[in-house]
Parts: sequence; C-alpha cells; structure tokens
Amino acid sequence: MSMLLSRRDLSFLLYEWLDVESLTKRERFSLHSRETFDAVLSTCERIATERFAPHAKKSDEEEPKLVDDVVVLPREVKPALAAFAEAGLVTAGMGAEVGGMQLPMAVEKAGFAYFLAANVGTASYPLLTIGAANLLLAYGSEEQIERYVTPMTTGHTFGTMCLSEEHAGSSVGDISTRAVPSPSGDRYRLFGSKMWISGGDHELSENIVHLVLAKVPGGPPGTKGISLFAVPKWIEGAGGARVRNDVSVVGLNHKMGYRGTVNALLAFGDGKHTIDGEAGAVGELVGELHGGMKAMFHMMNEARITVGLGAAALGSTAFLHSLAYARSRPQGRKLGERDATTPQVPIVAHADVKRMLLAQKAYAEGAIALGLYCANLVDEARTADTEEARDEAKRLLEILTPIAKSWPSQHCLEGTSLAIQVHGGYGYTRDYPVERMYRDNRLNPIHEGTHGIQAMDLLGRKVPMQGGRALFDLAARMRATIARALAVRDEGSQRLAGALEAMVARLGEVTAKVLGAGDPEKILANAAVYLEATGHVVLAWTWLELALVAGKNMGRAEDSDFYRGKLAACRYFFAYELPKVGPMLALVESLDTTTVTMKDAWF
Amino acid sequence: MSMLLSRRDLSFLLYEWLDVESLTKRERFSLHSRETFDAVLSTCERIATERFAPHAKKSDEEEPKLVDDVVVLPREVKPALAAFAEAGLVTAGMGAEVGGMQLPMAVEKAGFAYFLAANVGTASYPLLTIGAANLLLAYGSEEQIERYVTPMTTGHTFGTMCLSEEHAGSSVGDISTRAVPSPSGDRYRLFGSKMWISGGDHELSENIVHLVLAKVPGGPPGTKGISLFAVPKWIEGAGGARVRNDVSVVGLNHKMGYRGTVNALLAFGDGKHTIDGEAGAVGELVGELHGGMKAMFHMMNEARITVGLGAAALGSTAFLHSLAYARSRPQGRKLGERDATTPQVPIVAHADVKRMLLAQKAYAEGAIALGLYCANLVDEARTADTEEARDEAKRLLEILTPIAKSWPSQHCLEGTSLAIQVHGGYGYTRDYPVERMYRDNRLNPIHEGTHGIQAMDLLGRKVPMQGGRALFDLAARMRATIARALAVRDEGSQRLAGALEAMVARLGEVTAKVLGAGDPEKILANAAVYLEATGHVVLAWTWLELALVAGKNMGRAEDSDFYRGKLAACRYFFAYELPKVGPMLALVESLDTTTVTMKDAWF
Repeated sequence: MSMLLSRRDLSFLLYEWLDVESLTKRERFSLHSRETFDAVLSTCERIATERFAPHAKKSDEEEPKLVDDVVVLPREVKPALAAFAEAGLVTAGMGAEVGGMQLPMAVEKAGFAYFLAANVGTASYPLLTIGAANLLLAYGSEEQIERYVTPMTTGHTFGTMCLSEEHAGSSVGDISTRAVPSPSGDRYRLFGSKMWISGGDHELSENIVHLVLAKVPGGPPGTKGISLFAVPKWIEGAGGARVRNDVSVVGLNHKMGYRGTVNALLAFGDGKHTIDGEAGAVGELVGELHGGMKAMFHMMNEARITVGLGAAALGSTAFLHSLAYARSRPQGRKLGERDATTPQVPIVAHADVKRMLLAQKAYAEGAIALGLYCANLVDEARTADTEEARDEAKRLLEILTPIAKSWPSQHCLEGTSLAIQVHGGYGYTRDYPVERMYRDNRLNPIHEGTHGIQAMDLLGRKVPMQGGRALFDLAARMRATIARALAVRDEGSQRLAGALEAMVARLGEVTAKVLGAGDPEKILANAAVYLEATGHVVLAWTWLELALVAGKNMGRAEDSDFYRGKLAACRYFFAYELPKVGPMLALVESLDTTTVTMKDAWF
Repeated sequence: MSMLLSRRDLSFLLYEWLDVESLTKRERFSLHSRETFDAVLSTCERIATERFAPHAKKSDEEEPKLVDDVVVLPREVKPALAAFAEAGLVTAGMGAEVGGMQLPMAVEKAGFAYFLAANVGTASYPLLTIGAANLLLAYGSEEQIERYVTPMTTGHTFGTMCLSEEHAGSSVGDISTRAVPSPSGDRYRLFGSKMWISGGDHELSENIVHLVLAKVPGGPPGTKGISLFAVPKWIEGAGGARVRNDVSVVGLNHKMGYRGTVNALLAFGDGKHTIDGEAGAVGELVGELHGGMKAMFHMMNEARITVGLGAAALGSTAFLHSLAYARSRPQGRKLGERDATTPQVPIVAHADVKRMLLAQKAYAEGAIALGLYCANLVDEARTADTEEARDEAKRLLEILTPIAKSWPSQHCLEGTSLAIQVHGGYGYTRDYPVERMYRDNRLNPIHEGTHGIQAMDLLGRKVPMQGGRALFDLAARMRATIARALAVRDEGSQRLAGALEAMVARLGEVTAKVLGAGDPEKILANAAVYLEATGHVVLAWTWLELALVAGKNMGRAEDSDFYRGKLAACRYFFAYELPKVGPMLALVESLDTTTVTMKDAWF
C-alpha cells in the first residue's frame, strides 16, 4: 500500500463520486477513458514514489545554498523533475495545441497530489511552472506562448510568480517595482526587488521565466496601476545568443520547512548584468497595461486550490504514516485489563488513538475531496454544456476557492500535528517523516494569501458578489444533498441530513445579519471566524456526499471495510466537528467588536 | 521592555491576585518580603536575559553531538548554568537546611519562567535537577540527601528522570530494566536501557544523578513492582576515587525543537564500564522497595506543572515578539480607505491581527496565571494554617495538574502558531525567533504524559477520587468567584458571571452523567474532549478572577491601560473561547462511541 495517498480513495472520489468518466463525452476529453485516467494516476504514483519521495528527507536536511551566486540543491532534484516532464505531466491538463494531454483537471490534480505528498519541496517547481504556463496561455500573445510556454511544456524552462516585495506582502498594491518602457515601446526595463520567490533561481532548467507584477510610471496608484511582465533569466541577444538578464539573487530565505523549494529575494535591474550597457531587467508586458492583477489572479486562484490540495496531501501521507505506526506499535492494554503480564496491544486499539486517526482521516480525505471538487468545477466552468451551468460552476469556484485554500491549510496542519501525537516522542524526532510534514505544512496558512486575506476575500467579496448569488448556489447544492440523504430511509442519514440542514439555515441567517451591519469594520471584524465556520459547513456537506456514495456502493462486499471507514469518518465529522460551527456563527452573528475596539496600548 | 515575560503581569499575578505577600506571615516564608521577592525576580530576569536568551538560537542550530562518546554542546551553556547556580536559584524553593532561600513556590516558578521563556533547552537542566533534588528531599535517606542533593544545590551535580524505555513510554508498567541486589543488599546493579533521557549525558556538571525506575526480580508485575534508584554517572570508589559507573550513551535523539536539551538513549549495565570487574550500573534504592511509582510521581507532578508553565512561557515570549512586530510592520490601510497613496498603517491596527494578538494574550497570560495558581497551591498544601486547608489545596492541585500540564501545551502551541501568523512569511523563517518557539513548544503536548494520558488521569482518576470531592472543591472556588463578580454592579461582570455559572453547572451535570455510564470504555472514550472542555472552564474562571482584580485596581490611573488589557483579554476569552465548551460537553454527554466502535480495518 502506498504511504503517499490511498489510491482506493482517489478512485472512489474520481469515479464513484465525481463521475469523471462522464466527462469523456465532452469534446475536450473525448480521447480519454477510465483506462487513460488510471494510467496517468499510476504514472504519477510511480514517479512520485520512485523519484520524489526518496530525496524528501535529504532536501529538508540540505537546504538550498548560494555558492558563488549559484543555487545548489541536492542532485536528486533535477532528474526527478526531468522524469516528471518526460512523462508529459507538465502539460497533463493543457490542450493538444501545446502538446497537452487534455486531462480533466480533477484527474490532473489527483495525480499531482502524489507529488505534493511525496515531496512538496520538489513538487513546487512544476506547480509554479504549470501555473505560469496556464497564465500565459490565457493572457499571453501567440508569440509569448511560443517563446515561453513551449519550453515549459518540455521542462526546459520553469516559471515563477513574483508579487511580494519586502515591504508589500498582503498589500500588493504597495509594490514599488517599476517597469519603464523602452523608447520603441515593445520592451520594458524593470527595477525593484521581489521577496519570497519560490523557484526564484536554480540550475534545474535552462531558463526561468519570472512573471512579475510591476508599475509603469504614470499609472494610477494602488492595484489599478499594476501590470504583469514576463522576465526571463536568459534572454535572446543578437544572433540568438543567450544573454543573462539583469535579475539576480540577493539572498535565500531559511524556512522552517518546505526547504526543498528554493525561496529567494530577487533583484531586478540592479545592474549586476547590464544589457546593451544598461541596467534594468528586460521584460515583456503580458496582457493589458494595468491589467496585471486580473492576469495574476488567474495563476493565483489555481495556486490557492493547489496549496489547499498540498496541505491535504501532506495531511494524507502523515495520516497513512501514523496509521501504520499505530498498527505496529504495542503499548498499553485494553481498559479494564488488570493483568500486567498479558501482552500489550497495538495502540490502534485505544479509543483516543482512533479519535486522532479518525480526525486525521476526516480532515485529510475531506480536504482531498474538496480539492478535487474544485478542480472538477474548473472543468465544468470550461466545458459544461450550457452557459448557465458554466456560470454556476464559476460562481461556485469563486466562493469555494478561499475555503479550499484555507480549510485544508488549517485542519490538515492540525492533522499532521495529530500524526506526530500518535507517534508520541518518536514523532517529535527527525527519524520519522511526520516531523518534517508538520513543518512543511505550517507554510500553507501563510503563502498565496494568509488566512486573514482568504477571510476578507470570502466575506468581503465572494459572498456579497452578485447579490449573494454564489452562496445561494452553494446552499442549493447542499440542499440537494440533504434531500438525497433524507430519501435514504435509515436513521443515520436522516440525522446527518437534519444536522447539516440546520447549519446551512443558520449560515444563511447569520450571513444576512452580518452583511446588513453596514459598517465594513463591523462586518469584517470576525471574517476569520466566518471563514472557519463556512469551511466546516462545506466539509460536513462534502462528507455527507461521500457517505451517500459509500452507503450506495456498500454492497460490493469485497471492500465493504473501505465504505464503512467512509461512513465512520462522516459520523466522526458530524459528531466532533460540525457542532463547533454553532458557537462560531453565534459569535459572528453577535457582531462582537472586542477586536475592533481593542487598543494597541492595552496589549 | 523585556521580550521574555511581562514583569508588570507577574507583579499583577503575584501581588494583586495571589497576594503572595501574605505568605510572609507564615513561618517558612517569614524572612521574606515583597522586596526579597522582587529582588529574586529581577535576578532571574537579568540572568535569563543576559546568559540564557543570547544562545537560544545557537543551541537550536548546533544541536548536541556525540564526539568520541562525549556530548558536545555550545560553550555558552555551562557558564549560563553556573550563573544560575551561583545566584542560589537551584535551591530557591528549598529549605534553609540545604541552604535554600525558602521562597514560596509561586515566586520561584515566576522567576523560573524567565528561563523557560529565554531558552527552554538550557533551562531544562536546572528544571530536572531541582525536580530530582526535591524528590530526594522527600524520599531519600539523610545520607542520600547529603551525597546527592548537596552537590546539586551548588550546581556541581545535575539530575535526570529515567522512566521510559524504547518499548515502554506511556505504559511505564512494562519497563524491563532490572535492579539486582548485591549480596550484602545495600546496593543494586541495574541492567537495561532508558529512552528520551533529557540531560542524559553531558560535561556541564561534575556528576549526573539518574533517578531510574527499575524492577527488582521477583517483585509483582506492572507498576506495583517498580522501584526507584539513584544511579550516579560517577561513583565513589576505594579511597574516594571517582569511578565511572556502568551507564553509557547509546545515541542522541534528533528533535524538532528543544534542541538545547541533550536527549539520549542510555544503557545501564551494558558492561562498557565494569566496576569491580563486573557489569551492572551501581545504584541505591530510594524510598521503599516497590514504591518507585509513588516517589517518581513526586517529581512527575512538579514536572507536569513546570511543563505547562514552559508552554506558557514560550507562548508569552512569542506573544511579545509578535506584538512588537505588529507594532512596527506597516501593511495595508484601514478598511474603507480607498486612497492607495496614503501611508500604510502598522498591522496592529487591523482587527484580525488584534484578534490573533488577543488570542495569544488570553492563552499565554491565562496559562501563566494557572501555573502560578498551582504553584501557590503547593505552598498552601505545605503551609496553610489548618489541615483542612492543606487537604483542600492538595485535592485542588491533584485535579488541576492534568489541566495545568495539557491546557498550556495545547493552547500556547496554538498561540505560538498565531505569533508566526502575525509575522506572515517572515515568521516562517529562521530569522525570527517565533519559528523556533513554535518547534520548541510542539514537544509540550507529548512529554511528561501525553495529552491522552492527562485526559485519562483527569477523568479516570482525579475526578472520581474521594467521591468527586476535588471537582466539588474546584466548583466551589469557581462559584465563589462568580458570587464576587455578581456583586460587581456592572453589566459586563454580570454577563461574564452568568456565562461561567452556566458552564460550571453544565460541567457538573455532564460529569455525573459520564461517570454514571458504568462501562469504563464508554466513560473514557472522550476523555480528551472532557479534558479540553474542563480546561477551558478553568481558564474562563481564571480570567474572571483576573478581570475582577483588574476592575478593582483600575483606579490607579498611571497604568489603566494595563488593566484595560486584562479586561479585554477576559472579554475575548468569554466571547471567543468559552462558548466552544458547549459542543464539547454535549459530545461528552452523548457518550458517543464513534471512536470505540471504529475498527482498524476501516481506516
């Protein structure tokens, strides 16, 4: 059995729940079948297991170093990424026009989750490259696609996203990197520095294309004056010569985890590599002038879902490791066994250990399900038969994105912590991989928009947009699930349906009350609590969906254990987790201003 | 201002709340005064700041190494510990008969918290030594006190506690280390290995006295057959010569944090250092034969409270660091400010950042208060005027110990995580100390009895003991606080009192129901949830206590900000935290058996 992800679970989610096979009736996916999907998943599992997982510990221990201006990484990273590209996985979800497999995104992401589970540090390079390529495919000119995307598809060029600067992280509108147009107007020279650039420099690929947010002088202030530029590390000089662009590494960040991903402070245009005798990093405008934020959000939204999936993948592999440990570690006896000479039992027999394992299972498998659901919505938004269906999928994706990013980041971090706890003292040592997974997973509530940013996005933007239509759509989907559960004539389903129905109603009530509060400070004071509450309702709904499928397919006697596990995890979620939503919504509803009125001097 | 602990807060807790000055009327503390207490606190703050804090980062980066069988630590550790001992701090709480200061324990622990906050890795050595000395003072013979405790008081000998073995951690009754009596019966030879031994070997002191649990062959099985032995690294040979005892380091553990504390697997009696030509570590019985568990619990109970205090100290220093960062980091603007050209505001102005800071404040300051309250109970148990008062203090201490250990370990870890979150990406790098504090703090829910063990201790032993008397005592104290709050004629106090009263009543109700369930598996299935719920009720009570004192002393205009901060943290706790208890108690009351009935095969 794989210690990365449960293949049985992925099959359950993709085929039994999301029914991705039905997508093969659509033109874009018509060359596919369950067999081709399975073949890709097997390839991913194999490469992740054989090429990515083995150096995860080494990449953690030997973090990237800057030696004579060159970023040094463990030698295993490059061939692993070559294997990824050679298997065609960079373009797995892309169109045939760039040599892509045209896989549904749910299948692509399920496959990619193996790499995230195996070695998130190494997986970040293709993650960013795929995101950059997709952005360029959506916003780049044909020439730009040819120049930048084509070498990305073969793994010869990698991509990055350069948003933050030292003084501007969450507040991206405050960036100060400038892009000055050349006299001819077809190129720009960039000046400024960018912080937290994952994959910012390395020798893993022949070139790196940085997608950089910058301001063209004279534009409007704030985010409205931001444009997007493609700035390659190497540009083409006279006669096709490779010329070093004026981009250089100022320093590397030393992180708690995620150490396999080089993370750099980059200087653009500091004159270290002048071109035609002048300082300034040469870049090309991508998309419209001052349209940088919109274009970057294309990549950002995809990245947010993948960050959530990464947290889920780490939670999943940590769960599988702690389960294996719990099955093999004898300690203690059954309660009431007073004979100290009887053999010890494996700790998986203890209720409290099962509680920790069930929590991990509910968090990790629920989060993977949510991630694939969102990926499926991307396909729906792109290929559903009617415009109405495509628009609904877009709205659902908009409202679910902050949840798909933040919920796994919070709860699968907690799950990874429980994986350590199951191991006891051993889990706190670097001899067991759960220690690293915990450190890796601590990044996820921070990057690609902190928890607080996701909360503002949900309550300040996604919920109120179009008169609350996205939330109505989401509630309608939940009510449809509830109706199906009510139609199942057993007591358990009725009870779960009733519990979810009550929470969905409360969520609607509280949302209306909060949005009606008028004052934005009051509305958003407890946005983080609202995000958490909504996330828990979404996950309860997800678990009810999964339980319905499990109940339906339970008859397959050969793996009834699998389905019973799903039902137990669903019961766990409804008994231990969903009730937490009650006090959260009560707090949000009360429009409590403890945090707003708190004064700095009182701390 | 100190970045370790708030001295203003310690003064508030010790003098305004616990009124430790009143202890000076008792004989044991009669030579003391507020001036002597303050002098000790200042000494602790100074030595912690000047000698412990500066090498915390270095100790984390240069973890203990075994070089030619010698444990190598950063050179700053030894002089720091010498400064600690020279200031008389090893014996701060001990009696004059061993040269001690006879400080009340609340003052001693408040002082020690500075060291835990400054550098928990280095502070562990005196922590263990003081614990070992106190155990020997309680259970050792006069000769043993002279031989082992006297050199501990001057810092020449350090102590350890050796309970766990590789196959026996939580299940201590399963240890297999043997202690074989010498033919004369006055000494023993020990054989076996001990895991997770903090301070297990080093060159920091002239000698190390291991307090080792072992079984004398022929005794009863399980914990009833366990005895305690003092096993020094160096013993006195013929003519007073120093002879190496047969104890050796097999290996060091490589931990996520707490790296400054060497943590070893020790072999006893593996024949590496034979004595009189024979293998076997020479040890002396401490206390009664087969009375090892009782004696070790003397040390363990003290260690549990100190572990909780250590978690609180880490939470406190992390809070102070993130507060300083939030005050100095400009990012974003006030909600509704649409002019992007206005200057950014410090993030402490944002409600969501204030929420994270208030949570940290409520967790850390609440946990410090609980730790000092327990320390105060130790003094009461020892020196209160009546036997009744002493017995009540003992019972309260018994029931509060699992909470004082587990609550800070869980919530101040979360607080440390929030400290990272306030720092954003910077907090995830090793350039900021919150990163290390988070890793350090992850140990606390594991060592000295995991969360699950504390839960069983609370619900399986402490609550039912003496017919539930300890819980009645605790509830009586809470009701007294509630009555005082009700007597304050403002709306806020009335509301807080009412909320706590309702939760105390619910806790009593649910406890009776659970204990009445009969089947121990059902009773204990959700012991961990019960522990968390009870902990939250205890902390709400603590915060109400603190708020009452703050309200009373608010008149002191010169630092009304301090008191307002206390009131705000109390309001935060009652608005954001206490309501979480509702669903927890409902779950416990439901006697839910999801975890009990879960089968291994379903995972």
